[in-house]
Parts: sequence; C-alpha cells; structure tokens
Amino acid sequence: MSLPVSPLAPKQFAELPAIAGVRLSAENSGIRYKDRPDVMLAELSEGTQVAGVFTRSLAASAPIEWCREALKNGKARALIANAGNSNAFTGKAGVASVNRMVKATGATLGCADTDVFVASTGVIGVPLPDEKITALLPTLTRGLDESNWKPTARAIMTTDTFMKVATAQVVISGVPVTINGMAKGSGMIAPDMATMFAFLFTNANISHAVLQPMFARANDRSFNSITVDSDTSTSDTSLIFATCKAAHPIIEEGSDDAQRFYDAMESVLKNLAQQIVRDGEGATKFVSITITGAEHDEAARKIGLTIGNSPLVKTAIAGEDANWGRIVAAVGKAGQKADRDKLTVRIGGVLIAAEGQVVSGYDETPVSAHMKGQEIIIEVDVGIASGAATIWTCDLTHGYIDINGSYRS
Amino acid sequence: MSLPVSPLAPKQFAELPAIAGVRLSAENSGIRYKDRPDVMLAELSEGTQVAGVFTRSLAASAPIEWCREALKNGKARALIANAGNSNAFTGKAGVASVNRMVKATGATLGCADTDVFVASTGVIGVPLPDEKITALLPTLTRGLDESNWKPTARAIMTTDTFMKVATAQVVISGVPVTINGMAKGSGMIAPDMATMFAFLFTNANISHAVLQPMFARANDRSFNSITVDSDTSTSDTSLIFATCKAAHPIIEEGSDDAQRFYDAMESVLKNLAQQIVRDGEGATKFVSITITGAEHDEAARKIGLTIGNSPLVKTAIAGEDANWGRIVAAVGKAGQKADRDKLTVRIGGVLIAAEGQVVSGYDETPVSAHMKGQEIIIEVDVGIASGAATIWTCDLTHGYIDINGSYRS
Repeated sequence: MSLPVSPLAPKQFAELPAIAGVRLSAENSGIRYKDRPDVMLAELSEGTQVAGVFTRSLAASAPIEWCREALKNGKARALIANAGNSNAFTGKAGVASVNRMVKATGATLGCADTDVFVASTGVIGVPLPDEKITALLPTLTRGLDESNWKPTARAIMTTDTFMKVATAQVVISGVPVTINGMAKGSGMIAPDMATMFAFLFTNANISHAVLQPMFARANDRSFNSITVDSDTSTSDTSLIFATCKAAHPIIEEGSDDAQRFYDAMESVLKNLAQQIVRDGEGATKFVSITITGAEHDEAARKIGLTIGNSPLVKTAIAGEDANWGRIVAAVGKAGQKADRDKLTVRIGGVLIAAEGQVVSGYDETPVSAHMKGQEIIIEVDVGIASGAATIWTCDLTHGYIDINGSYRS
Repeated sequence: MSLPVSPLAPKQFAELPAIAGVRLSAENSGIRYKDRPDVMLAELSEGTQVAGVFTRSLAASAPIEWCREALKNGKARALIANAGNSNAFTGKAGVASVNRMVKATGATLGCADTDVFVASTGVIGVPLPDEKITALLPTLTRGLDESNWKPTARAIMTTDTFMKVATAQVVISGVPVTINGMAKGSGMIAPDMATMFAFLFTNANISHAVLQPMFARANDRSFNSITVDSDTSTSDTSLIFATCKAAHPIIEEGSDDAQRFYDAMESVLKNLAQQIVRDGEGATKFVSITITGAEHDEAARKIGLTIGNSPLVKTAIAGEDANWGRIVAAVGKAGQKADRDKLTVRIGGVLIAAEGQVVSGYDETPVSAHMKGQEIIIEVDVGIASGAATIWTCDLTHGYIDINGSYRS
C-alpha cells in the first residue's frame, strides 16, 4: 500500500552538512521493500561516544536488548539499521540474528562487536532473514560517504510518507559544532510498521557520562511529548553519536557550553518529533497543547498527553468542532492535580472557560475560524502551581481507520 | 442526529418485575429532546439504604458532588435524573441548580433534601434550566408506578441506540429477592452526551455499610472493566437502592447470603456493562479479553484494558485482521509484569504465540474465520503468577469518527 504524502509535510527538507567522523551508506536488501534502500550503515570514527534511550515496552525486541547492553560501554563505531522487519517477538532466533549482524559488521569495519549498534523496524513476529543484510556489508562499506544523509534517512522509512531530517549548528568555545538528525515514524509510534527511530550525529567533544542524562531529558521534551494514538512500539530507539572531532575543550556537565549544546540538540529532537506528528497516519491538523499552572512539569506533560490521546478531543478537532467540554473532561481524567474552579481553556488564543464555567459573552466565531486551519493551538492552565509543558499531536480521522484497519492483510 | 440501532444490540429486552418500595415515572422536559421522556423520578420507601460509586474525574459535575455528600448518610428516598444537559462545568450556577432540584423533590415527596439523589447527563458547560425539571414534579409524582421500568430506562438515554435493562433473582434465607437495573451509555464512557449511569434497585434487606464495599467491588469487575475509547466522563454515576422490604434476616458481611446477593448484583452490573459496550459508538464487534497469569487481578485488569484501549488493536479487529503482534505490543506497554518469553496469545481459542515467538506451523485460517464473526475472544497469559481478569470492548470503526467528529455542531 503506497500512501499519499501527508498534507502536513514540511514544504522543504534541510540540507545536512558533513560531520567529521561520520560516513553513511544505504542499500536494498529486498526483505520487504523491493525498489528502495531499506538497510543503512553508519561508520563512526574511533573515539565516538554514544547516548541512547529505548522503548519502555516489556516486550522489547532483540535489537533493543543488544543496544541496552552495548550502551553500557558508552562508545560506538557503527550503526546498522533495517526497515521492513522489526526482529521483535522472534524468540531465540531473533537473538541469534542480532549476534550475526553485529559480528559481521564488526568484522567488516574492523571494530569490536560491542561497538556496533543495531536497530530494526517493521512487522513483528517474523524471523529476520539477517543473511540478506549481512550479504550487503561489502557493498555498504564501499558506498560509505559523508554526504549520504538523505538516502540513509529514506532507508529507515516504513509507513512514513516523507523522510525526516533536521540539523542545527552551535558554537562551543569558538568552534562550530554540528548536530544532524534523521528519524522515522509515521506518527502512530506503534508496533507493526511504525516504530520510532531517531539517529543523531555530532562532531561535539563530549563524554557518554555527560551526554546520556542530557539526551534522556531532551527526549522527554521531544519524542516523549508527542502522541498520535497512544500506542508504544517494541522497538523505539533514539541514539546520538558524538565523534568528538570538534577542536573545543570537552564539554563539562552543567557548564554554559553544555547548555548551549543541549539547546541545539533539543531543537533537532523537537523538530524531528514534530515531523513525526506531521506524518501521523491520516492526520489533517497539527495540534500544539500547552499546559501551565500544573503541580510540576511532569504533571503538565501528563495532562497534555491525556488531552492529546483523547479520541473525543482528536475526533472533535478532525470535525473542526471547538468542543472545549471534551478538553475539560480530559483534564479531569488525567489523574493530576487541577482546580476545576480555576481552570482556564484557550483555543487559538481565545479565552473560553474560566472560574469553572464558560466565560460570559463567549463568542465561538473566532474559535471556529481557528479550528478550520491546519495548525491548532490549545492552552490550558490548571490553576495549581507553575509546572508547564507543551505536547504535540494530530487529529483522528477516517484516514487512520483506513490505514490501520486494512493494512497488514 | 438519530442513529441506527447498534448491530450488537440484544435481540430482546428483559421484563423487569416490580420491587416493593420502588415507584417510577418519566416525563419530557423539552430541555434538549422534544419527543421522548428525558427526566425520571424514582420514589423509594422509608428505610431505603443506598450505595454508590462515581467518576474519579477531577472535573466532576455539581450533581456528582451532591451525591458524594448525600451518600455519607447511607439512606435515600428519591432519585431524580435527566438527559440532555449534564450540569457539568457550570460553576456556581450548577450548584444552585442542584440545590433547587433536591429541595423541590424533597418538598414534593415529603422527605429531607439530603435523601434525594440527582444525576444529569448531556452537554457540558451549558447552564441547566432546572426550572423545566422542577415544574414537572407534580406530573412526575402523579405518574409514579411500580411497573414503569422501561419508560424510565428510556428517559436517561442520550446517544444510546437502545435502552439497557437487566434483572436477577436470588433466594436469601428462603425469601426471593429481586435486583433490577437500568443503565445508559453509548459506550464511549465519555463527556459530552455519553456519560455512564447505572441505577439498581432491590428489595434486599441490607445496610449501607455492608452494601457499599460489595457494590464498589462489583463495579470494578463490571463498569470498570469495559472500555470503548478510554475516555472518562465528568458525570459517571452508579447507584444501588435497597428498600429492605424482603422478609429475610439482614444480610451480614462475609456471610453466604452476602455472597449469593453479591453474585446476583454482579451479574446485573456485568450484563448492563456489556450492553454499553454493545452500544459502543460505531461498534461492529463485541470483544472479550481475558488475561491470566498476571501478578494479581488488578494487574490483569490493567493489561486487559491496555489491549482494549489500543487503537491499533481496535482498528485491526474492525478490519477482521488477526494481528496478534499488536496484542503483544499492547501487553508490553501496559506497565505491568509480563514475561515476554512465557507469554501466550490465543484468538478464538487458537494458540498463536508462545515461548517468545509465533508457534511453529501456525495456521491463520481458523483465526481469520473467527475474526469475521461478531463476538471476538482474545486470551493472553502473561506468565508471571495467577492474577486474572476479563474486560470487554468493541472495535474502532469509521462509525466512531462519524459520530464524534461531527456530533456537537
């Protein structure tokens, strides 16, 4: 099934500059997709540091289990990823596949197995024909090039209707540092063909120990702040590789340099996360939900996600209905502190509800006009303290049912 | 918008016998519905004991707040309920409406205000014109009759496509006891027009103190074990009124009589809860999900609800796709203990997955045939301990989007 490009897709894609120490290539394995790259290899120079976060699913795939172990060393020399088969719920055969893939990649590039990261996305429960991937290693190695960002970003796509790339530059102690990123996920953040991957690459000089907590925090504020349908994949993988080639002093925890680097990294992750929402299955509206006045930031994020996951809110948005009652009800079920009588709700900047009821003289006209646009803005203050968060989601339409009700068979 | 009757509706409705001490009537207020009853009154004899459970929403409606307070006395003389306006998120005006309704009802029936229970369902955020309800009190009182079960059950419907009634008989110390129930909810268990109400009536001789924990437990195993779209209403109300007219000794906590009464009450609640799922908006399949092998029963219920709330599972069922991978993924995200390598998944009684992978020689033919039916059975054992639960849900179809994407405006 080939899907039309999402109406919310970016109008143009970023050009990604080369990053010292990173070379990429992509090839077709024929495992599921016949006429496009579906395997990618990234070679990383000696000394590359890595940080990562993975799905919290208890049914995590064999590649996820491998990456969790490999991450403990904090260093990386290669990433091999494929689309079309997730190698999830494949039992002992799945573990054997991962072992063969990392061994062959390590042997080809001349590095330790444990420095190879692996990621697979696609159908669950079907044994991975890993020999089709390892057979490509010589070709992939010959094709390694520092400019191959877009073919690589295409190789990890499954039900995505457009490739997702982003880049940011930041100056650290006078030295320019680049952060490039690619992602896949057609929004559903879901098991079958729509796992979320994000792979970031930077020349920054930073250690695993400093990078790991910063990366985890930035993921909470980006990939863990989006939702399309509340479903979680067995294979979600977010990794950042720092080649440490930039000639600035090593970034120290808590320094101004660390904050500058963090801000640039977070901007790349947020950009990629929002692109995933824009590719949400069946999406016709991009929705930002900002919660303020919560007990703390995490409470605000949970309230935002509860609104963003509510099928009633999402179908109302699809129907261009300024149904603020459903937003109030979603706040009520979030399980976080909220003061019904201090709650305020704004849509498109217009105050609709306050002091436990609709504002007097409320005129729905400008709100209805806002609902007809492609970018919907919802703001809720829950009247408790100063916790705040913004989450991003899309509407729930017939397109979602079409894609997911008929897709596998 | 008038909806066709759900294809999953029961083929016939139970006949409800009279219960000593209960008289009912229903009338039309014209608040939202013009050509059908939308207000109901139940008069309960002196000495009636009551138990209740209510929405956990932090944005609970004014009627809910009243009922929570009134329940502390444990006794009741009347219930007044209306459909079309929920009196939720209506601020101080909403509280004043409730006060006027209970005062007028108490004055008309000659009982204390605090013995009057009130329930409202319908649109959120619109002040309730309670004078249209209180003006009906003389007519409602004249119409009180012990046989008016069905008109009353119809008066609480909103987007429901059929009325929901159930009854059970049980013999306590040689004396026949009846439990009648009515419910409303078109499955979405949702804020706008689809709040869940369940009102049960019995002649059993039982005290509030004994009844309350039993009723709460039975609600967990019935109404809290169903889901259509995971949304929670600001007005969910479940009440049982025991007139104590049956000539058996008072039911003691933990006795065999208590167990017999509990079983009958639970069967009425489960029957009503399943009828709500069968009226789920857009539903075309009724789905039972049984979880075994969980850490404890509550863990099993949470895993079942996570599967039942997964849009990917629900759309797969709508598409008649035996997509067991989505079930495994939902187990993984439930946040409860599960052993991926001991997990088993059955659909329609056929073992599909075990030992962390699909069973060898799995033949999808009988499972695909089962998926084409109206009643879908999913069984998952998570391989940890002996916790078990069954939950009920329906599929997610274009009908749901149609109803909720266009419904208010």
